[in-house]
Amino acid sequence: MAYHKPEAKTVQDLKDMAHKLRIHSVASTEAAKSGHPTSCSSIAEIMSVLFFQHMRLNLKHPRDPSSDRLVLSKGHAGPILYAAWAEAGLFPVEELKNLRKIDSDLEGHPTPRLNFIDVGTGSLGQGVAMAAGMAYVGKNFDKADYRTYVIVGDGETAEGSIWESLHFASHYELDNLCVIFDVNRFGQSEATSLQHKMDVYRERLEAFGFNALVVDGHDVEELCKALHCASSTKNKPTAIIAKTLKGKDFPDIEDQENWHGKPLGAKAACAIKTLEARIVNPNVKLVPKKICKSGLAPEVDITNIKLCTPPNYNLGDKVATRVAYGSALAKIAADNDRVIAMDGDTKNSTYADRLRNAYPERYIECFIAEQNLVGVAIGATCRRRTVAFASTFATFFTRAYDQIRMGAISQTNVNFVGSHCGCSIGEDGPSQMGLEDIAMFRTIPGSTVFYPSDAVSTERAVELAANTKGVCFIRTSRPETTVLYNNDDKFAIGRGRVVRQKPSDEVLLIGAGITLDECLSAAQQLEKECITARVIDPFTVKPLDTDLILEHGKQCGGRVVVVEDHYQQGGLGEAVLSALAEHRNFVVKHLFVPTVPRSGPSAVLVDMYGISARNIVAAVNSIIKK
Amino acid sequence: MAYHKPEAKTVQDLKDMAHKLRIHSVASTEAAKSGHPTSCSSIAEIMSVLFFQHMRLNLKHPRDPSSDRLVLSKGHAGPILYAAWAEAGLFPVEELKNLRKIDSDLEGHPTPRLNFIDVGTGSLGQGVAMAAGMAYVGKNFDKADYRTYVIVGDGETAEGSIWESLHFASHYELDNLCVIFDVNRFGQSEATSLQHKMDVYRERLEAFGFNALVVDGHDVEELCKALHCASSTKNKPTAIIAKTLKGKDFPDIEDQENWHGKPLGAKAACAIKTLEARIVNPNVKLVPKKICKSGLAPEVDITNIKLCTPPNYNLGDKVATRVAYGSALAKIAADNDRVIAMDGDTKNSTYADRLRNAYPERYIECFIAEQNLVGVAIGATCRRRTVAFASTFATFFTRAYDQIRMGAISQTNVNFVGSHCGCSIGEDGPSQMGLEDIAMFRTIPGSTVFYPSDAVSTERAVELAANTKGVCFIRTSRPETTVLYNNDDKFAIGRGRVVRQKPSDEVLLIGAGITLDECLSAAQQLEKECITARVIDPFTVKPLDTDLILEHGKQCGGRVVVVEDHYQQGGLGEAVLSALAEHRNFVVKHLFVPTVPRSGPSAVLVDMYGISARNIVAAVNSIIKK
Repeated sequence: MAYHKPEAKTVQDLKDMAHKLRIHSVASTEAAKSGHPTSCSSIAEIMSVLFFQHMRLNLKHPRDPSSDRLVLSKGHAGPILYAAWAEAGLFPVEELKNLRKIDSDLEGHPTPRLNFIDVGTGSLGQGVAMAAGMAYVGKNFDKADYRTYVIVGDGETAEGSIWESLHFASHYELDNLCVIFDVNRFGQSEATSLQHKMDVYRERLEAFGFNALVVDGHDVEELCKALHCASSTKNKPTAIIAKTLKGKDFPDIEDQENWHGKPLGAKAACAIKTLEARIVNPNVKLVPKKICKSGLAPEVDITNIKLCTPPNYNLGDKVATRVAYGSALAKIAADNDRVIAMDGDTKNSTYADRLRNAYPERYIECFIAEQNLVGVAIGATCRRRTVAFASTFATFFTRAYDQIRMGAISQTNVNFVGSHCGCSIGEDGPSQMGLEDIAMFRTIPGSTVFYPSDAVSTERAVELAANTKGVCFIRTSRPETTVLYNNDDKFAIGRGRVVRQKPSDEVLLIGAGITLDECLSAAQQLEKECITARVIDPFTVKPLDTDLILEHGKQCGGRVVVVEDHYQQGGLGEAVLSALAEHRNFVVKHLFVPTVPRSGPSAVLVDMYGISARNIVAAVNSIIKK
Repeated sequence: MAYHKPEAKTVQDLKDMAHKLRIHSVASTEAAKSGHPTSCSSIAEIMSVLFFQHMRLNLKHPRDPSSDRLVLSKGHAGPILYAAWAEAGLFPVEELKNLRKIDSDLEGHPTPRLNFIDVGTGSLGQGVAMAAGMAYVGKNFDKADYRTYVIVGDGETAEGSIWESLHFASHYELDNLCVIFDVNRFGQSEATSLQHKMDVYRERLEAFGFNALVVDGHDVEELCKALHCASSTKNKPTAIIAKTLKGKDFPDIEDQENWHGKPLGAKAACAIKTLEARIVNPNVKLVPKKICKSGLAPEVDITNIKLCTPPNYNLGDKVATRVAYGSALAKIAADNDRVIAMDGDTKNSTYADRLRNAYPERYIECFIAEQNLVGVAIGATCRRRTVAFASTFATFFTRAYDQIRMGAISQTNVNFVGSHCGCSIGEDGPSQMGLEDIAMFRTIPGSTVFYPSDAVSTERAVELAANTKGVCFIRTSRPETTVLYNNDDKFAIGRGRVVRQKPSDEVLLIGAGITLDECLSAAQQLEKECITARVIDPFTVKPLDTDLILEHGKQCGGRVVVVEDHYQQGGLGEAVLSALAEHRNFVVKHLFVPTVPRSGPSAVLVDMYGISARNIVAAVNSIIKK
C-alpha cells in the first residue's frame, strides 16, 4: 500500500481541527474550573489526524466490534477525546461544557459510562496492556481488520507496566497495534526524567522490538505518514514517538513548568483568541472514515456457557480445587470457542495448562508480568469478544491490584483465578502464600468472590463465573480437600450450604477451602465432648449468604466460629461480621493467620497458625458458655 | 584501577567452590523434598566469584553497615545463597540439611529472619528496586565505599518493575550498583520469551543507560573481569548479563525443560557424583574479603525523632491533613538528617515537596513508578540507614501492593503516606480516589494504620510513624477539615479520643478524616431531634482502640454508627466489627461508599454516596430503636 501525501486542503483542515479541539479543551476545563488543558493541547494534532484521517469508526455504534479501537492511556487528557467525538458528530459540542459535572458522564477521566469508551483510564501506565489485549484478539481470534491505537503520556513511560506490555506486543507480533507516545517533557510536579531525549525513547522502543518512528507531534503531515507506515508494517507493532509541547499554542503557558492539571483561568481568553486566529476555516467540518465492508469481526455469542460434561467425582475423594479448576476450564472451553485463558508462567501450578493442552491457540502465555496479564485480559474481553480466565498464584494478583481496581471502573467481566492460597501451601514460605487475596477482591465494586471447598463446587464456580458480569475471583487451594457434593448438586452465587446439621447444634462453624475440612473434623471431635456443631460452606464470600448465616447462627444460640486460611482483615471473617453487624446477640470467634507465616509442612503450619481442627475445638470451648 | 587476572589456582578454587555450592543445593533440596536446585546451579559460578573474590563482608556482623550488599532477587535460589554463607564460615554447613524445616530459618525463600538477609524475596521482580534504594543511600547519604549486587533471573525480567528500577538506577548514576542477570533461558512452565537472545538483553540494558556486559556465566574468569569492570565504571550502573544453563552440570537435566522447582530425586546421587568428580581440590576452603578500613559508612542515630517545633494551629481552623503532613515531614527532617522522603511525581499534591523545599538533597524523586518507589524506600531503610516516608495518592499504592506485602516479610520500617483518599476528592473521578487503601494496609502483618482527622493529630501521626517499627501508613485527605485538638494534646498509637460526649448519649458515632467532621455535624443536628450522640476519633485504625469503643459503645446502649470515605470491605467499619466480634449486644450501622463513584463536587459526592451528616442522621434514626 503506497503512501499518498494528503492534499494541502486536507492538511489545513486537520490543522484547523486540531485548534478547534484545543479550544474545546480550554473552554470545557474553564467551565469545570478543573482539568488538564495543557495535557490535551500536546495531543491536538494527534487526535485530529487519528479521528479525521485514519481511524475507521461507526458513529451509530461507537463500540462496533469491527471499528478501530482507541485507548487514551493518559486519561487526564479526556476533554480532548470528548471534543474529538463531539466534532465527529457523536453528540453535540455544546455538551462539552458539562465536563466534570455531577449529571454528566463526561467525567474527569474517561470511563465506559460513555458509550464510546472501552476501558477506564486515569491510573497511568495501563493503556498499552489493554490495547494489546484488544489487538491480540483482533489478530488471533477475530482475525479482523480493525486496528488498535493507544496514546501514552511520556510521564507514564516510567511505569514498568508499559514495558511489560511493549514486550508482550512485540513478542506476539501485534502489527495491528500502534502505540503513540506524547513526549511533552513534563510530568505533574516537574519535568520528566528523559525530557525531550527522543533518541533514548527510540533506542528503548527498538530494543523492545518495535518499529519506532520519531515525529514532530504537531506536524500533521508527519503524523499521517507515520500512521500509514504503522498500518503497512508487518509482524511488528509500531511506536510513534511524538515530540510535542505541553500547552502548545497557549501564550505564556506552552512548554512552561507548573501548568499541569489546572484550567487556564485568566489566560484562557487570550489562549482561545490566539487559537481562533490560527484557524483558516472556522467552519471546518470533517467526518471520520467508515468501517470497510471486508475484514469485519465475526459475530460472537458468549452467553449461557456450560460445562460440556458435569463434574465427575466420588464423595469422599481427595481432590485439590486447583486441579478441578483446570478440568472445568477445559470443559467450558469445549462448550464455547470464545473461552480463553492466560497465565503468568504458573500454568502448571494453577492448572490453566489443561485448557492449553486441549486448545493451545486459546491460551495466551503472559510470562511473569502480572500487571500486563490483567490488562491483556481486560482488553481481550472488551466489546464482549471473549470470556477470559486469568490465573496465577492468588498472592501475585497483589501485583496487579491497581489494574483490577481500574477493571471495575472499566466494567470488565474478567474472571481471575488464584491458586496457592494460605499458609497451607507449605514449604515455599510466605512470599508465595495468598493471605490477603479475599480482602483485595472483596473491595472491588461489583465483584463476585468464589471460595469453593471441593472439586464439584469448584467446577460449578467456573461455570457460574463464565456467565457472571463484573470481576469474578475464584480462590483455589493447593492441598487436596474432600469431595463433599454430589455431581448434580446445584450451586448459585450468594447461596451457601449447610454441610452438617443437628437440632441440638450449639455453635455454627463457617470455613472454606481447607478450613471447611478442618471444621468438619472439629465437629466430629466436638461430638465426643457432647457439643454438636453446625457447619456452613459459604461457597461465595461476596455476596455472602447473609440469610443462611443469620438463620442458622440464631439456631445455634448466636455462637459463630469463622475459620480461614487468610489474614484477619477483609476476609471471610470480616465478611461474616459485616453480615451480622445490624443484629444483636451474636458472638463471633474468628480464627485466622495472625502473622507472617514461615516455611514448613502444610499441616504443621495450619495448626501452628491457629486454623486447624484442634484450634477450632478450643475456640468452640471458649465461646460455648458465652 | 587496572585489572589483574586471577591466578590459575584461584580460578580453580573458585570453580571447585562453585561445584561445592551446587552439591549443597542438590543435597539440601533433596533432604527437604522440595526446592529449586536447577535454579541454584545456573548461578553457582556467580555466587562463588561474588562471595570469594569480590564482595567485602564482615562475618561477625553480616549486616555491617559498611559491608557490600547482595540481594537475591530470584529468591527461589535461596539454597545456594545459604550454602555460600555456610562455606564462607557464617554457620556450619551441616545446617544446610535443615532447609525448609519448620524449626529452621533456612526457609524456602530468604527472609530477614536470617541475620545475613536484608530483604525478603520470592515474589519476582522486586530485588533491583531494593538494591537501588541501598545503592542510592550508599552513594548519596552514607557516601561510603560499599557496593550493592543484585542477582536477577531472566524469567523475572518480564516484570515491568525491573525496568522501572533499571531506569531509576541509571538516571541517578548509581555506579555502586551491579545487576547480574542469570539468563538460563527457562521460566517455571516453559522457556522464557527471549531464551538465550543475549543481544536483545544487551540492547535493552544499554538503551536503559547501563554499562552492559554479556558473559559466559559459568566462566569464572569472565565473571571476575566483568565484576572488576563494574566496580571501576563511573557514573553508570553495570549489568552483567550472564549466559547460563539451568541445572548446569546435572546429567540429563542441564538445559532441559520441566526441571523447575523440584528436587532431583532419583537423579540426585548421579548429579552429586558427577560434580564431585569435577572438583580438583575437595578440601578447598576460601574466605571472603574483609571490609576496608576506609570508606566506612558513618554512624547513624535514627531513634527518638521529634517534630522540631510543636503543631501550631488554632482550634476550629480549616486545614487539609495532607498539608499538615508536609509541614510535619519538614519538621522531623529538621530534627534528624536521616529523615528522607520520596514520591512518584505527586509531591505537590501530597505535600512531600515541603521536605524537598527545605532539604532538596534528602528528597528522592521516583517519577511515576510506584513499584520502584516502594522498593527504593524499603532498600533505603535497610540496616537502619534512614527513616523513609514514601508518598503518592492513596489509591496508587495499590500499584505496589505486592511490594508492600513483601515489605512486611522484609521486616521493613517504611512509612507510607497516601493522600487523596475517598470520593471527597471530587471532580477528578474514581480512578484517583483511594477507597481500598485502609483495607490494603490493614492486611499487612504488623502494620500501623493512621487516619488522622485534623492537622494537629496528623503532625503527631508523622512523629509517631517515624519512631514506629513495621509498615506505617498515614491516610491524608484533600478537603480541609476542622482543627479539633490543642497543639499540646498527646496522641498515641492505638488510642482513640472521645470528641463529643454527654451522659445522655444514645448512640456512638465513629468517623475519621472528613467523616469525623460529618459525625460532629450530625451530632449537632441530632440534638435538635433530642437525640444525643457520642463521637469517637479512632486516630489509628490499626491497632484500633477496642477498649475505648467497647466502653463507650456500651454506654450508648450498644448502638454504633461507623462512617467512612472508603468501600465497605476491610476499612474502618470492619475494623470496628472485628473489635466488637466477641461481644453480644452491639448493633452496628456501617456507612461507606457503596459503588464506583463518579466525578462531581466533593460535598455532592459525599452526600450522594451516603456518608454525609444527613446520611448519618438517617442512620441514627434507623437504629435508635434497635
